[in-house]
Amino acid sequence: MKTETTIQGLAASLNPARANRKIIGFVPTMGNLHQGHLNLVREARKLCDVVVVSIFVNPIQFGPNEDFDNYPRTLEQDQQLLADVGCDIVFAPTVEQMYGKKPRLTNISISDITDDLCGLQRPGHFDGVAVVVTKLFNIVQPNYAFFGQKDYQQLAVIRQFVQDLNIPLEVIGVPIARAEDGLALSSRNGYLSQEHRAIAPVIYQSLQKAEQQLHAAIELDTVLAELRQTLTDVGFVVDYVEARTPELQKIHTFNQDVVLFVAAKIGNTRLIDNLQVKYTAG
Amino acid sequence: MKTETTIQGLAASLNPARANRKIIGFVPTMGNLHQGHLNLVREARKLCDVVVVSIFVNPIQFGPNEDFDNYPRTLEQDQQLLADVGCDIVFAPTVEQMYGKKPRLTNISISDITDDLCGLQRPGHFDGVAVVVTKLFNIVQPNYAFFGQKDYQQLAVIRQFVQDLNIPLEVIGVPIARAEDGLALSSRNGYLSQEHRAIAPVIYQSLQKAEQQLHAAIELDTVLAELRQTLTDVGFVVDYVEARTPELQKIHTFNQDVVLFVAAKIGNTRLIDNLQVKYTAG
Repeated sequence: MKTETTIQGLAASLNPARANRKIIGFVPTMGNLHQGHLNLVREARKLCDVVVVSIFVNPIQFGPNEDFDNYPRTLEQDQQLLADVGCDIVFAPTVEQMYGKKPRLTNISISDITDDLCGLQRPGHFDGVAVVVTKLFNIVQPNYAFFGQKDYQQLAVIRQFVQDLNIPLEVIGVPIARAEDGLALSSRNGYLSQEHRAIAPVIYQSLQKAEQQLHAAIELDTVLAELRQTLTDVGFVVDYVEARTPELQKIHTFNQDVVLFVAAKIGNTRLIDNLQVKYTAG
Repeated sequence: MKTETTIQGLAASLNPARANRKIIGFVPTMGNLHQGHLNLVREARKLCDVVVVSIFVNPIQFGPNEDFDNYPRTLEQDQQLLADVGCDIVFAPTVEQMYGKKPRLTNISISDITDDLCGLQRPGHFDGVAVVVTKLFNIVQPNYAFFGQKDYQQLAVIRQFVQDLNIPLEVIGVPIARAEDGLALSSRNGYLSQEHRAIAPVIYQSLQKAEQQLHAAIELDTVLAELRQTLTDVGFVVDYVEARTPELQKIHTFNQDVVLFVAAKIGNTRLIDNLQVKYTAG
């Protein structure tokens, strides 16, 4: 496994693969890897000849009061984990390598589906994601790009701009990896105190309960209200509890497939999770 | 020469060239081709193995009161001209082929350099250009893309987002093609009455005079004021007369290379032109 820190170095590393028309798979990450990321790499390994993983903590997707400076940076450990799951090339550029010295004047914005859920609390976040992911796509030029379903809205945003801009690759969404107690894996879980870590699985437990209630024909609004109450009762400050179509359109009745979304803070740590609930008529 | 009207058809046509690592040159146009466009194709022919020209009147770069519906569409004539200068593939998609049936949610905006000159009178114009050009770049995936220097601000905008988004191609700017009397070639020249066509060359003549004045050490502001007055005197309604650095930054003294810009209406037709003036110290 090679590590490249410059765009030129990466291009040189990928050139033989491109010349031989190899299938290139790409997993963009911000590092501090866990089994969720490694599952993305395993999926890429199955479909592709060459697997590239980027590790880049992207400043422009963090708000001014967010955790950019403190975001965990664990490159050596990440490299070891990636080597173990068969990654071929790690691309770990500096901020200057990605954004250069001249000011960036270009922005990419996606309307409608970025206005709420995580977009409401994080203005500019998805613009920053769209810009960096587009840059990385243009640098790596993969055939397939892999993203986790945990960041469901991010995945929807990426699918949208890939389609709107005719970016020549296929986006693959990979199911959420969870701890044994159900907590969705996240780099931010490392911020949790022991006490908060013990409470955190309530998010997934209450999403599962909501799924059962929907299948038992309890009204969607009632289910969402109870889910919110459960989280508040155990100590979360709920940011949102929402139900959407798989394309992120608002939905008020469980009469088609639905995705349930939660974002909630425990202590200073904001956790998100979601659950796709299938609709079966009758 | 082939004409392709679908993205899939174009991909099939280009696939052998890509497999053989041929150099692909791309000239995006809105059709109604003149010698200016054909010069772009000739430049592409010199540098590239395969030359693709797109003909697509892009609705999203026209404002609500602009000439989208009346913009001249002359595909057969264009095909003949392109065959004569050695174009390999014409890509002439429909609006639906380019924008699909689902709503587009993605926008690309470039700050600062789109705020004035043509951007001031045409809000959203450069966003529309950035989106369609990005789409076309992703569809054609050329090594080189050719643009005329007549649309100097457009060329600067394209260079900017290509750099900011790491789009893997090189942008080539090609000098302005002019009629014998100096009028910059433009599809919109076809709108001019005989009377207005006779006045139109005053734009270039007064740009040349301004260049002489600058080299004779007349103050930049004085030169610009006289240029504006000359145009007004012969019947133009001046939109702007401006001097900028080659990177489109404002400049008040002729102490480095400068680009002089004119946009002016004669009758209902808006014409633009520009002249690069070299600075030689002493």
